Amino acid sequence: MKKLGVALIGYGGIGRVHAIAYRNIPFHYGLPADSIRIVGVATSNPDSAQKAAAEIGCEIGTADYRELLAHPEVDFIDCCLPNNLHEAVVIAAAQAGKHIYCEKPLAMNVAEAQRMVEAVEQAGVKTQVTFNVRFYPAMQRAKQLIDDGFIGRVFSYRGRYYRSSYIDASKPLSWRLSRAVSGGGALFDLGSHILDLAYYLLGEFGSVQATLDTLIKERPVAAGSSEMQPVDVDDIALMHTRLKDGTLGLFEISRMGTGATNDCIIEVFGDKGALRFNAADMNWLEVYDARDPEKPLGGMRGFRKIETIGRYDGAKSPDWSHTPGFIRSHAECQYQFMKAISHDKPAAPNFTDGLHIQAVMEAAERSSEQGRWVKLSEVGG
Amino acid sequence: MKKLGVALIGYGGIGRVHAIAYRNIPFHYGLPADSIRIVGVATSNPDSAQKAAAEIGCEIGTADYRELLAHPEVDFIDCCLPNNLHEAVVIAAAQAGKHIYCEKPLAMNVAEAQRMVEAVEQAGVKTQVTFNVRFYPAMQRAKQLIDDGFIGRVFSYRGRYYRSSYIDASKPLSWRLSRAVSGGGALFDLGSHILDLAYYLLGEFGSVQATLDTLIKERPVAAGSSEMQPVDVDDIALMHTRLKDGTLGLFEISRMGTGATNDCIIEVFGDKGALRFNAADMNWLEVYDARDPEKPLGGMRGFRKIETIGRYDGAKSPDWSHTPGFIRSHAECQYQFMKAISHDKPAAPNFTDGLHIQAVMEAAERSSEQGRWVKLSEVGG
Amino acid sequence: MKKLGVALIGYGGIGRVHAIAYRNIPFHYGLPADSIRIVGVATSNPDSAQKAAAEIGCEIGTADYRELLAHPEVDFIDCCLPNNLHEAVVIAAAQAGKHIYCEKPLAMNVAEAQRMVEAVEQAGVKTQVTFNVRFYPAMQRAKQLIDDGFIGRVFSYRGRYYRSSYIDASKPLSWRLSRAVSGGGALFDLGSHILDLAYYLLGEFGSVQATLDTLIKERPVAAGSSEMQPVDVDDIALMHTRLKDGTLGLFEISRMGTGATNDCIIEVFGDKGALRFNAADMNWLEVYDARDPEKPLGGMRGFRKIETIGRYDGAKSPDWSHTPGFIRSHAECQYQFMKAISHDKPAAPNFTDGLHIQAVMEAAERSSEQGRWVKLSEVGG
Amino acid sequence: MKKLGVALIGYGGIGRVHAIAYRNIPFHYGLPADSIRIVGVATSNPDSAQKAAAEIGCEIGTADYRELLAHPEVDFIDCCLPNNLHEAVVIAAAQAGKHIYCEKPLAMNVAEAQRMVEAVEQAGVKTQVTFNVRFYPAMQRAKQLIDDGFIGRVFSYRGRYYRSSYIDASKPLSWRLSRAVSGGGALFDLGSHILDLAYYLLGEFGSVQATLDTLIKERPVAAGSSEMQPVDVDDIALMHTRLKDGTLGLFEISRMGTGATNDCIIEVFGDKGALRFNAADMNWLEVYDARDPEKPLGGMRGFRKIETIGRYDGAKSPDWSHTPGFIRSHAECQYQFMKAISHDKPAAPNFTDGLHIQAVMEAAERSSEQGRWVKLSEVGG
Repeated sequence: MKKLGVALIGYGGIGRVHAIAYRNIPFHYGLPADSIRIVGVATSNPDSAQKAAAEIGCEIGTADYRELLAHPEVDFIDCCLPNNLHEAVVIAAAQAGKHIYCEKPLAMNVAEAQRMVEAVEQAGVKTQVTFNVRFYPAMQRAKQLIDDGFIGRVFSYRGRYYRSSYIDASKPLSWRLSRAVSGGGALFDLGSHILDLAYYLLGEFGSVQATLDTLIKERPVAAGSSEMQPVDVDDIALMHTRLKDGTLGLFEISRMGTGATNDCIIEVFGDKGALRFNAADMNWLEVYDARDPEKPLGGMRGFRKIETIGRYDGAKSPDWSHTPGFIRSHAECQYQFMKAISHDKPAAPNFTDGLHIQAVMEAAERSSEQGRWVKLSEVGG
Repeated sequence: MKKLGVALIGYGGIGRVHAIAYRNIPFHYGLPADSIRIVGVATSNPDSAQKAAAEIGCEIGTADYRELLAHPEVDFIDCCLPNNLHEAVVIAAAQAGKHIYCEKPLAMNVAEAQRMVEAVEQAGVKTQVTFNVRFYPAMQRAKQLIDDGFIGRVFSYRGRYYRSSYIDASKPLSWRLSRAVSGGGALFDLGSHILDLAYYLLGEFGSVQATLDTLIKERPVAAGSSEMQPVDVDDIALMHTRLKDGTLGLFEISRMGTGATNDCIIEVFGDKGALRFNAADMNWLEVYDARDPEKPLGGMRGFRKIETIGRYDGAKSPDWSHTPGFIRSHAECQYQFMKAISHDKPAAPNFTDGLHIQAVMEAAERSSEQGRWVKLSEVGG
Repeated sequence: MKKLGVALIGYGGIGRVHAIAYRNIPFHYGLPADSIRIVGVATSNPDSAQKAAAEIGCEIGTADYRELLAHPEVDFIDCCLPNNLHEAVVIAAAQAGKHIYCEKPLAMNVAEAQRMVEAVEQAGVKTQVTFNVRFYPAMQRAKQLIDDGFIGRVFSYRGRYYRSSYIDASKPLSWRLSRAVSGGGALFDLGSHILDLAYYLLGEFGSVQATLDTLIKERPVAAGSSEMQPVDVDDIALMHTRLKDGTLGLFEISRMGTGATNDCIIEVFGDKGALRFNAADMNWLEVYDARDPEKPLGGMRGFRKIETIGRYDGAKSPDWSHTPGFIRSHAECQYQFMKAISHDKPAAPNFTDGLHIQAVMEAAERSSEQGRWVKLSEVGG
Repeated sequence: MKKLGVALIGYGGIGRVHAIAYRNIPFHYGLPADSIRIVGVATSNPDSAQKAAAEIGCEIGTADYRELLAHPEVDFIDCCLPNNLHEAVVIAAAQAGKHIYCEKPLAMNVAEAQRMVEAVEQAGVKTQVTFNVRFYPAMQRAKQLIDDGFIGRVFSYRGRYYRSSYIDASKPLSWRLSRAVSGGGALFDLGSHILDLAYYLLGEFGSVQATLDTLIKERPVAAGSSEMQPVDVDDIALMHTRLKDGTLGLFEISRMGTGATNDCIIEVFGDKGALRFNAADMNWLEVYDARDPEKPLGGMRGFRKIETIGRYDGAKSPDWSHTPGFIRSHAECQYQFMKAISHDKPAAPNFTDGLHIQAVMEAAERSSEQGRWVKLSEVGG
């Protein structure tokens, strides 16, 4: 492995998660501590940048991310900015010849995502989108099983991503509730993850029939304020989808899934078997083998909770039989990108993958407006 | 309670379930054994009728159900025939002045259901549809809680009914796979139950957007046969629905839900709380109270598995702290109908309720054909 | 199958459960209704006996059980009396040449149980103890698997039977809390079941180390009374046991298992596999196959919930894919006894088996008093 | 917070876990990166020490831990050595005036633990034992609830720690299977954790009745070797315990818990409520409130899965609604020790606590040998 330098651009909650994960990589993969170095961090103002740099223990904390793009020891940037700021940073990083690791969703819309794909292809830099849920061991195992034919012909699939983060009507507006900054609501924030999981396991989408709704239509402009403004993004998105080969499935995405802490669920049903996973219960992949005998009493069919837990392929983690946690999935996601850079191999999921998910989401929005099935080709996907 | 006589019309699997349940009623409700008497049973031929009568221990086993309609000691009939035979029997029973207990779905289509409703209203007989899932204690408790405001404003809901009964492509055609006999596929057989649960808990539906699919398009005409014929009903039905008041929700119904034994699930999400139930895990109703404190560490929010188990209101069942089972839910459903007859009170769910569910299903079929939202009013609902 | 007549002796809660189960047998096994006839019921006084007979729909309701023992159409008696009344009835029934089906625990102590075994052996009548939990399909499947070598060498086992039926200190004294009537507390009432499960699956016990405790030491003599009397039976019993071959395991039995509705749990751990079951979740037997591959990522090991549900071997129940419930397990238990009588084959678990469990319980009591391991041979087991 | 330097002594699997956790602390608590500095690492030979130092990114990697004890920037040592090496290092560290963080179990036996306690008390240094399971948010919340009276009077408790790490008889001998190095088997390795959990929540133990067993009595001396040597430690330990106030409970500890990945379970039953937790399912604490109404149908009693997840009191972790993982619990455990040092406050669980657990384990061993209850006072506890 080459020693790599990364520049963190954006340091909110998810930026801090990324920083922890980089710190953990040497231990999980048996690498020297300097295999991955956070060269600097850029935030929106000098004070927060200094505070971020102190917490990280890196030299540079700057309000001008271009300073980091110009730094010779930065091999790749890690973009943790709000969605409306991705495009500019990504295009600048590509032009600076930096590889790019970018939080999901990739862009505000398909047009932006297409411009970003063009820019990185022209620059010849590697890209990866932080679809970290793919990188739970259970999902890695699911991919193996599906590729090995465990499921057989897919009958249908279901994805859910429910959180209850916005059930309180007095919770004020924020960037995630503003279309101008986020590009979309629950569909973008949560839906992008669960759509990617299905895409990862089952392949490309072909068409979408969706209904989006804003359940709390206006909120205070700030905590405790009596001034209300409309919410212009979706709180809930229900989707029926067909893969390119026509296979039917459904998705349900909500920020008002009362009681759901972090229910990120995927299920696949096939003629040979089935599988299901919930990121809230990450230690196990549940699989059902329809090849097992089924007799009135003597059968062996049933869902089996495979102990995937922290079992990464080839990893040297010292905690492989203990619950790995959310941050561990980010470390694996980052490490795969580092390997791609180091060995000059393709990274995945890359920006073209990110564009595909963007197209599914845009088709869903159009479908909801028009009350009909929309093909991905109609939105440039 | 009046002593009542019932005539069983149809004695396949579900007819036998009904018969057991009648036998159990005296014990569960502390009534004399002769509170409910199975006067006779009608099947399609004399031999099976005699065998049925012997198993039941009733005097009459006949291939002519009209014999039972004419019997003076028959207070109500219980129709367990295939769907295409409901209408004729029901109308004849109404004309004979018998009260009518009828398996779901009520009819082959909305037009039939409307005629049946007209006939029973004209005759002034009481009716009930066997939506037995309503009668699990957990669902009775859910109804109490919703009526008491536990959920608050409903954000959304979800229903699933998945079984894996048809995943084997060599399973031959049968009446459930034939539109001419069943009227519909998974949507009719399983969907009617789960739609009724949502209707029971949340109220009337207004419109539907659905996609139906037949996953195994042809099957052997008989077990082991190499002659194949097309399946002309749905194996899977996905639905987005809006209640009359606009509340959005979803349903997923499949006979190809690989691994599902009997996953009949309802979830309701609201601003004050949430609830969920799975008939495969019938002992508990899970509820979440959003009024509970939520603090970084000191909170009390979480899903609670209320021990509803066999706890029927007012019942004298000796097994109230043990798992009641499927048959017990039928006994409760029947007992409520017996009470309605005995005390001359309204029964529920009656044929008008059955018609509503029929309309939702017909709207779903039309929506799937036309790829758009369909209002219930468009199909006569 | 011969047509059989049964006399119910005792008609409290469990007597009513037995009555329902007899009524259901014809339907579950495809038999004529008169295969099993409840000839009469005996209770402690004429009024309750008449009421019981009316609920059951049988001719005889008597306060003198000897009337039933003398009845020529009674093939077997079903003893549902409090424990202190078992011996007299059983010995009288044996002398009358009736087969005997008896609720658990068999007796008040080992001496009584020995006398009962002698009496029935002398009389040559068949006996069965109502260890109905054995008769859940999941436990039948567990027995098959163990007999087939699925578990391999048994490392250890664990049984729990927890209910929370007595956590309320204001709950008054009753026969179950009186040693003179019940013979013992939680150990007798709940422990007998779970000990039998282990015995059924794994074989005979050899020795016991136990601690019994009475957690609420006195209770009101009647509901609402301020007069208190001591509780002279155990509320909780903890046991370490060794099978005859030395295999170590544990049992925990409590009526103060706050929150437990009916947690009757058995687990077996072996070098080839493991299994576990909870009667509160009766639809599934969970099994783990240690022969499955275990790899860092590519493994398949995990607990599998086999869908045993209502799947009885050879049964014709119409509800085999639905939750069977508590009463169904009694029907199977009774039916096996009826088959033993009808085909003149050995019944199981018989009174000798019941005596073995009695010896384990008596050894546990002695161990608790003396603070040491007690061999079953020390108590006549 | 003071800036602190730590010396890692021992760098096997658990040493690496500790190292990751130190790295994460600044991010989880919003501290500067240099709040905690790993000054150096000591292992058993220079090569492994250099490799460890490279992975950690610290300056000193040494085979002589005394070098670190002499280092002025080392505020505390973190002892991750095999159990037989704890005493010497701890006493030397105390004499060097360093605070001491030490892996569990504290010592080889009570005598050693007593000497260690004396040494640290004489030196006036702070100590903490790595009972990290206490530091899951669910256990922190459990402690709050118990202290607030949620459980009421404790009826009983149960602890289990089952892993299936040694079910394969061909797994060779190692230090954990050698009494001379480990001091004990499953009881020491796993039992110390679960005993500490009960001690943390419920208070001091008074007496013990235990049975220990070695299930696989000899193993290969090395992988693949045909030379066998006896295993001289326990594989399984079953315990009945009484707290100082007499409250009865049980523990089951096994390395042959086939199918258990990491089942570390605690349950507490009381007259007002109950709680349960499994570290394999760390996101939730399950609680039952017996104050909730219980009615035939209208009740609200049931186990509630409180979403404790990553919710540490006062923490600034960016992942509080995602599964925190095993390493996170170590970070919290370390952070509490750092706070105790920094603010000169008592640390917990300290060596006196570790000694208490040591005494319980020694009493268990003696009890198993003698087949009787053993008081902690008999073993110097």
